[in-house]
Amino acid sequence: MRAAMFYGKEDVRIEEIKEPQVRPGTVKIAPAFNGICGSDLHLYHVGPMPPAPTADAPHPLSGETLPVVLGHEFSGVVEELGDGVEGLAVGESVVVEPLMVDGTCPACKAGKYNLCEKMGFIGISGRGGGLSEHIVVERRWVHRVGDLPLDQAAMIEPLAVALHSVKHAGVKAGQTAVIGGGGPIGLLVAAVLKAKGLETIVSEVSKARREKALSSGVADAVVDPAHEELRAVVYERTGGAGADVAFDAAGVPVVVAQLIDVLGAGGRLEIVAIHTKPVELNVTTQLTMKDGVLGSSIGYANDHEEAIELVRSGQVNLAPFITRRILVDDIVPEGIERLMTHKDEEVKILVSMR
Amino acid sequence: MRAAMFYGKEDVRIEEIKEPQVRPGTVKIAPAFNGICGSDLHLYHVGPMPPAPTADAPHPLSGETLPVVLGHEFSGVVEELGDGVEGLAVGESVVVEPLMVDGTCPACKAGKYNLCEKMGFIGISGRGGGLSEHIVVERRWVHRVGDLPLDQAAMIEPLAVALHSVKHAGVKAGQTAVIGGGGPIGLLVAAVLKAKGLETIVSEVSKARREKALSSGVADAVVDPAHEELRAVVYERTGGAGADVAFDAAGVPVVVAQLIDVLGAGGRLEIVAIHTKPVELNVTTQLTMKDGVLGSSIGYANDHEEAIELVRSGQVNLAPFITRRILVDDIVPEGIERLMTHKDEEVKILVSMR
Repeated sequence: MRAAMFYGKEDVRIEEIKEPQVRPGTVKIAPAFNGICGSDLHLYHVGPMPPAPTADAPHPLSGETLPVVLGHEFSGVVEELGDGVEGLAVGESVVVEPLMVDGTCPACKAGKYNLCEKMGFIGISGRGGGLSEHIVVERRWVHRVGDLPLDQAAMIEPLAVALHSVKHAGVKAGQTAVIGGGGPIGLLVAAVLKAKGLETIVSEVSKARREKALSSGVADAVVDPAHEELRAVVYERTGGAGADVAFDAAGVPVVVAQLIDVLGAGGRLEIVAIHTKPVELNVTTQLTMKDGVLGSSIGYANDHEEAIELVRSGQVNLAPFITRRILVDDIVPEGIERLMTHKDEEVKILVSMR
Repeated sequence: MRAAMFYGKEDVRIEEIKEPQVRPGTVKIAPAFNGICGSDLHLYHVGPMPPAPTADAPHPLSGETLPVVLGHEFSGVVEELGDGVEGLAVGESVVVEPLMVDGTCPACKAGKYNLCEKMGFIGISGRGGGLSEHIVVERRWVHRVGDLPLDQAAMIEPLAVALHSVKHAGVKAGQTAVIGGGGPIGLLVAAVLKAKGLETIVSEVSKARREKALSSGVADAVVDPAHEELRAVVYERTGGAGADVAFDAAGVPVVVAQLIDVLGAGGRLEIVAIHTKPVELNVTTQLTMKDGVLGSSIGYANDHEEAIELVRSGQVNLAPFITRRILVDDIVPEGIERLMTHKDEEVKILVSMR
């Protein structure tokens, strides 16, 4: 079968590989659509780093070295069920929660498997990926999506990231949220917040992204923090109270400071972005003096079913975020490269095998 | 009447001042015991800074300039009731929640009056203080303590700070907490945590403070982080899971890093200390990768009644923390100076007027 194989930095090859066979307790799936994620771009441009294996060092759970099949945001159709698999039928639409976990570490035992010590990702760490004609996955990671269109279903994975972050932040209906950064995760966080009944203000320097935040309906208001006083806008919209919660979907220290500044009494900043540089925090003035909270979470754990339900029920509409569809053969120029050169126009590019 | 007046840096004078008169809605109290607080030391050694007024700039709520009466941690006995005061009787033991608030700012309107924009403290910002023979206070700030001994009652104010912090952190019985710093606030936080059913580990470099943490019964275990591996001790005691929550009662960046390091999956660091230097936070590795939370709070709001009940019910015993009793005439050498020179041996020094 054909698959997109990640060999290392700037080295993705479409190749013929051996088709995986179903085993007891597993499900064979034909991937339909696969989204390209920021971590795919990072792997491609920077090269493999954990949870990806290298050519020499296998991932501790998969035992695999490079190359690995790419693709961890994907939907598909059930092709075959292994012995003992229940609650699924051949032909059903599904998504895969693309994880591999140890199961015995303290985090796993506490049900927080997103914090597994050995955490790996299908599509990054081995065990196949969504960018192939077939994949075999353990039953526990397969979620039925019913009549949800398979293209939107490919975005359930990043939606689960956004949902996990929103749940971690403990928001309430009627609150006002400021989202810093209108990229894919910022937009999905805003979508979940709207579904939960919050007022959303997206702060984003890119005009194209601000327009998408408005046209997709996930932002009640947008602000260009380079040319407008974000704090003044937020304080005016909240009658002087400030925001209840803010989400950092940018990953830049200055945005963290901006977002803390818009929080009112008892406010919380939730960081959903990855930060590569340290953030300098003046704890007393930035947090203490407002009974403030700073939280951050990674990935998802037991969030996929609720993410699927948010979309199936119509509370979240993922269609506006699918900005391009390409074939796997074009994944580098039309997918990975385009997301770097046109990052403000593109939200999610979906890749299909044929 | 006699009072301890704060004139400015290193200038406290015991003087005769005019006795305050009761007004409608206020209560006249004869202070019994007054604790010396870290902020008193700071005022004395560094000089006035907000919320203290200066000789030229009055506090916005009290309208007073220096000198002001000192003392904000105090108990007393009701001497006289102003017109319209209900729920209090002459001769009753009380404590004063030593605040002055605007009442109309967004934080006040949200019930979070500890975050009032103009926040002032009785005993720092004007309106008298506990280090005087009489004080007149608005009814809303007076709390009955029943048969609670008046010496212990003088510690209700710092206990309310500890309680507010513990409530802000959202702890649960059965969790394991690490407290960084075994000074007065660290010990009181540990005391509240024990009352709430948590296991407590106090990390403190001073031997005298570690011994007090153990002998007072508020620490289940103590660690000297200069000579023991705090992380290893915590992980061993928690079966490899790490701490559920940690409290920074030290206010030093390195302690923040140590405490984050002991947190397990989903853990929370709550900062109760004041930080004068910025803290450098590696958000992704320190918070994100453990679904972590960093919180901080200031003061108290609607916490005094619960703090009083914790002591009256016997869940918290404040007696071990009263390490010295002095007369107001000796407040500088035997109180303020001694807390600097013997900070590891002393916890709370109580001052009385006679």
